[in-house]
Amino acid sequence: MKSIHENARQLMRGYCRVCPRCDGKACAGEVPGMGGVGTAAAFKANLTALDNLTFNMRLIHDVTDPDTTASFLGMDLALPVLAAPIGGVSFNMGGKITEQAYIEAIVHGCQAKGILGCTGDGVPDFIHESGFEAIRQAQGRGIPFIKPWEDHELFDKLQKAEQTGAKIVGMDIDAAGLITLRKMGRPVAPKTLDALKEIINSTPMKFILKGVMTPDEAMLAVEAGADAIVVSNHGGRVLDHTPGAARVLPGIVEQVKGKIAILVDGGVRTGGDVLKLVALGADAVMIGRPFSIACVGGLQQGVETYIDTIHGELKQTMVLTGTASMAKATPAILNSQEAPC
Amino acid sequence: MKSIHENARQLMRGYCRVCPRCDGKACAGEVPGMGGVGTAAAFKANLTALDNLTFNMRLIHDVTDPDTTASFLGMDLALPVLAAPIGGVSFNMGGKITEQAYIEAIVHGCQAKGILGCTGDGVPDFIHESGFEAIRQAQGRGIPFIKPWEDHELFDKLQKAEQTGAKIVGMDIDAAGLITLRKMGRPVAPKTLDALKEIINSTPMKFILKGVMTPDEAMLAVEAGADAIVVSNHGGRVLDHTPGAARVLPGIVEQVKGKIAILVDGGVRTGGDVLKLVALGADAVMIGRPFSIACVGGLQQGVETYIDTIHGELKQTMVLTGTASMAKATPAILNSQEAPC
Amino acid sequence: MKSIHENARQLMRGYCRVCPRCDGKACAGEVPGMGGVGTAAAFKANLTALDNLTFNMRLIHDVTDPDTTASFLGMDLALPVLAAPIGGVSFNMGGKITEQAYIEAIVHGCQAKGILGCTGDGVPDFIHESGFEAIRQAQGRGIPFIKPWEDHELFDKLQKAEQTGAKIVGMDIDAAGLITLRKMGRPVAPKTLDALKEIINSTPMKFILKGVMTPDEAMLAVEAGADAIVVSNHGGRVLDHTPGAARVLPGIVEQVKGKIAILVDGGVRTGGDVLKLVALGADAVMIGRPFSIACVGGLQQGVETYIDTIHGELKQTMVLTGTASMAKATPAILNSQEAPC
Amino acid sequence: MKSIHENARQLMRGYCRVCPRCDGKACAGEVPGMGGVGTAAAFKANLTALDNLTFNMRLIHDVTDPDTTASFLGMDLALPVLAAPIGGVSFNMGGKITEQAYIEAIVHGCQAKGILGCTGDGVPDFIHESGFEAIRQAQGRGIPFIKPWEDHELFDKLQKAEQTGAKIVGMDIDAAGLITLRKMGRPVAPKTLDALKEIINSTPMKFILKGVMTPDEAMLAVEAGADAIVVSNHGGRVLDHTPGAARVLPGIVEQVKGKIAILVDGGVRTGGDVLKLVALGADAVMIGRPFSIACVGGLQQGVETYIDTIHGELKQTMVLTGTASMAKATPAILNSQEAPC
Repeated sequence: MKSIHENARQLMRGYCRVCPRCDGKACAGEVPGMGGVGTAAAFKANLTALDNLTFNMRLIHDVTDPDTTASFLGMDLALPVLAAPIGGVSFNMGGKITEQAYIEAIVHGCQAKGILGCTGDGVPDFIHESGFEAIRQAQGRGIPFIKPWEDHELFDKLQKAEQTGAKIVGMDIDAAGLITLRKMGRPVAPKTLDALKEIINSTPMKFILKGVMTPDEAMLAVEAGADAIVVSNHGGRVLDHTPGAARVLPGIVEQVKGKIAILVDGGVRTGGDVLKLVALGADAVMIGRPFSIACVGGLQQGVETYIDTIHGELKQTMVLTGTASMAKATPAILNSQEAPC
Repeated sequence: MKSIHENARQLMRGYCRVCPRCDGKACAGEVPGMGGVGTAAAFKANLTALDNLTFNMRLIHDVTDPDTTASFLGMDLALPVLAAPIGGVSFNMGGKITEQAYIEAIVHGCQAKGILGCTGDGVPDFIHESGFEAIRQAQGRGIPFIKPWEDHELFDKLQKAEQTGAKIVGMDIDAAGLITLRKMGRPVAPKTLDALKEIINSTPMKFILKGVMTPDEAMLAVEAGADAIVVSNHGGRVLDHTPGAARVLPGIVEQVKGKIAILVDGGVRTGGDVLKLVALGADAVMIGRPFSIACVGGLQQGVETYIDTIHGELKQTMVLTGTASMAKATPAILNSQEAPC
Repeated sequence: MKSIHENARQLMRGYCRVCPRCDGKACAGEVPGMGGVGTAAAFKANLTALDNLTFNMRLIHDVTDPDTTASFLGMDLALPVLAAPIGGVSFNMGGKITEQAYIEAIVHGCQAKGILGCTGDGVPDFIHESGFEAIRQAQGRGIPFIKPWEDHELFDKLQKAEQTGAKIVGMDIDAAGLITLRKMGRPVAPKTLDALKEIINSTPMKFILKGVMTPDEAMLAVEAGADAIVVSNHGGRVLDHTPGAARVLPGIVEQVKGKIAILVDGGVRTGGDVLKLVALGADAVMIGRPFSIACVGGLQQGVETYIDTIHGELKQTMVLTGTASMAKATPAILNSQEAPC
Repeated sequence: MKSIHENARQLMRGYCRVCPRCDGKACAGEVPGMGGVGTAAAFKANLTALDNLTFNMRLIHDVTDPDTTASFLGMDLALPVLAAPIGGVSFNMGGKITEQAYIEAIVHGCQAKGILGCTGDGVPDFIHESGFEAIRQAQGRGIPFIKPWEDHELFDKLQKAEQTGAKIVGMDIDAAGLITLRKMGRPVAPKTLDALKEIINSTPMKFILKGVMTPDEAMLAVEAGADAIVVSNHGGRVLDHTPGAARVLPGIVEQVKGKIAILVDGGVRTGGDVLKLVALGADAVMIGRPFSIACVGGLQQGVETYIDTIHGELKQTMVLTGTASMAKATPAILNSQEAPC
């Protein structure tokens, strides 16, 4: 990873410092760019919420070769990880590689390693077009995400997404707050329950609603007919001062676990972070910025190396916590004492 | 805002650093100047108390064009914000613009954008005189604040304030602790309940008491006949080591909501901060230093640009929390879990 | 104070940095010197414990000219403050002024301003001799402190202390842990209850036991016949990782208030700190390092200026919290909510 | 210690900075090296957990010459301290001294001062061979530790360990997560309860299981027939984000105290830290990095000087807390209030 990060540091100059730990401090307020909005409190809260969870290390057991596989909406995953939908290479990452090269590396790297890459949407059109094309090339193994456009654009894109061969589609409803889109004058908006039902009913694909941060909206997602939610504050890029995703996850799990698939996204950096969130009840997790950095720094090989890295970390953490499989990842592997200040 | 801030940074040199975030750290102890008194713990506590409040982000609803309007003591506001009463451009802000230019920009900028500017009082006399004149020019749309003088000066000024056409007047009773005034040998003091009643009865204007930090004094303000209180520690400029205004607000709201209008002041920087305080029960909020900086940096245009900025942020935050109007801003839009350390 | 501090910064070079706020960070581990022992956690804890206490600011009352006087073991004090017993100018403060000049400035400065200066003990003998002489010059208005020597030295010094005309004497029992004394090979030690009784009975002077940090030892001090205790961790100079004095004070007050006079010492910097501790139940407070710095920087005038400063701050804080007198300083002037992280 | 540390700073350049306080911050992620794995949160948590414990300082008692001796599995200790098993001088510490010189200095220095040194295991073979030889030279006064190898290597080494004359042997089961070993392709692994029983039964030596972090695994260690456990997260070198050892110790003590000897390891730097852990129920503590640094910087003399230092600190802390002997070290010497943030 080291040379990949060094390369990314060169290519993303002015957009991302590729810090030793990607934690939202140095880039606070850089939207567009890779930062969190405003004070970046919501970005940083994602990491803090994860850091406050600690593991019960256990070594008296027979878990030496843990099973990291998972399943998500009928798709098999080598590990419970998806690359989050991110677009806008030019204005967010410095534009030293093309949108197409970027998203192909993401989607194909994930495919090669047995996980799923998501593709982004936005302005200009080649963001989603590049993504759709990459999924088509991957025989539909990828998840196109569409922004919550106010008008027919949404339904048009859902149809086009279907033609890529994808079996699952997503909408990042929290993008309704994206400053970048507002600046470009393209209307996105929250959706009523009825509008959500109409959107979900309009497509035969399975539907993921990304951007749920409260138990009540998780229940509405169930009622609307969504197949999965992503607990996410959009990487802290839309609303300053939200809690971290890992902090609100347990309350949401309590309400909707078993009724809908639960993804979570925000601040995940390592295989240990993946295991923490699965232990709290997530079916799988999304990872954003680390994938973008690995991709800019090393294209498909960078993406694959990063997946290998977190896969190794995940295995190691499962051994050291005695977790034989994802189904065995429960809150019992986490220390229940509150972290000291 | 960027060029306004750069300009302010030049003009306020030696008095205010115009930090990326105005948080009381760099200027600790600078009174006169823009800082908090002593260690500036009270200044910083205002921001910490706000930062510890986090939002429940919600996107499944129909709030796409929220109503930011509010009403305060019979005055319509485009958004529930007032520019706090601040004077002393020469000794607090560097004196590169005149007191008159300053306060006219504040009052007229607020008027132009549909909110209310307050004017300050102090020594020398041209502080309040400039303020009164600015309100007269604005046909009374502005709120003159008078310091809690010990003698007839208080009653004289109340009469003069009335002649500006203002319908509301305020007294910042917490200024009784201002070091700057003591250094100038002008007696200000706390007031007994009886004295307060006499002061309030002496004027036909509606009366705001600024500087209430406990539920018991909020009840005394009601008993004295005040029309509104401002929960405020005077920006941390009079007494080191007080709690932040946002932290004591809920206890005060519980006691006097409905009996008296409640303003709150301290550490407000963004439209999100405004919404947090209204959600906790404030009728409107005051903003101090950011207005001063915008005003020194860009005069009336600076003031208007700042109002536009927080107005936009407020709208955006209302959309992302599903808050249709100020009346709908309740604690339910805030996350009830305590912030982690 | 500014020029006094600048002067002290020159004279104490290599021993004390005269930081803007004396908080134990820069000098951690510097014993001898002015620092706390080890990590200086106990020094810093004294300040943290005070900082975590916040004031209820109140302005609706008639307190405009508060009474700061107090009484301690029959002595009248202009304000409830004593200069803590500190000696060893040469090895702790740089030795640019003599031990005699130092302690005379402390004792006489305190006398001039109506409070009490304490004198230190140690090795070499001129430390206590200078102190005793200063008290003699002040007609006994000063409190000699003697270290808990293991042998007859203790009783000899008690007799000599009596001859200074002092009516009160103290022993800093916590000095039993002083590294500086151990390095000099002079035996000091804890005392049993019986030994304490013998010591106290051996002198007609009123007796202060300094270095009590638990309710059970406060009760033993009462049983031993002491007239006063000082809640103190010796400025964090003897045992790393003790709680701050302000944090253990309430538990001690609960046990022995009314049975014995209660002083407290540690981290006091301002008049506000004085009021906080009196509000928690202390009869008076001791201040250490700030007096030493003021004294080295300005001799008697430095001491007097510092006393004037905290006297002014104390008055100001009493006005802003509505505290008419020391007897009226109760926990009600403090905010009961816990400080946020 | 000062010149020993300066020397170590030279010799360990690039591997250890020999910070004023060894706290895991500067070297985060340096494995191999002296750091904690990943963010070093587990390393730092060891220190934080200890720092959050504060002492009740007490001086009214007869403890002037406390008894620091302890007994561990039939061995007398001058103080309840063991040098933790650490190997790999070349890849962890810079290799300026040989593995043999290192471990002889540790074992013989501990022997000379009446405590016990443990020896490490790893790749290449001269790590354990040097250790075994050092223990043989010390007539068996030392504890060989063996890694949890997957195959016959474990049983072979247990036999060889026995031939050194050692009466006690240990296995650091938490080493199953060591990145350094995995990189070298040498299989280590967790053990089932049955495997543990077989291992323990295979040797006549008393058996220490190192790397227990939960009450349930402490009970399994009892069931497996171990004679002692070491509560340890392996210095934060195997699993990021575990709690500090001192934080989980009380829960483990509650479960198994009296049934098995309890050691604890992690973050211990001073004699005060030793006393805190004994007060919480540990029979003795292990110290790692400080021994390595003292050893590289001063060989056997460095080791002995460090032991003298913590011995002196321990005595001093016992005097200042009124702790006559290790048996008298109970939670009553610790302050029960939670540390403020």
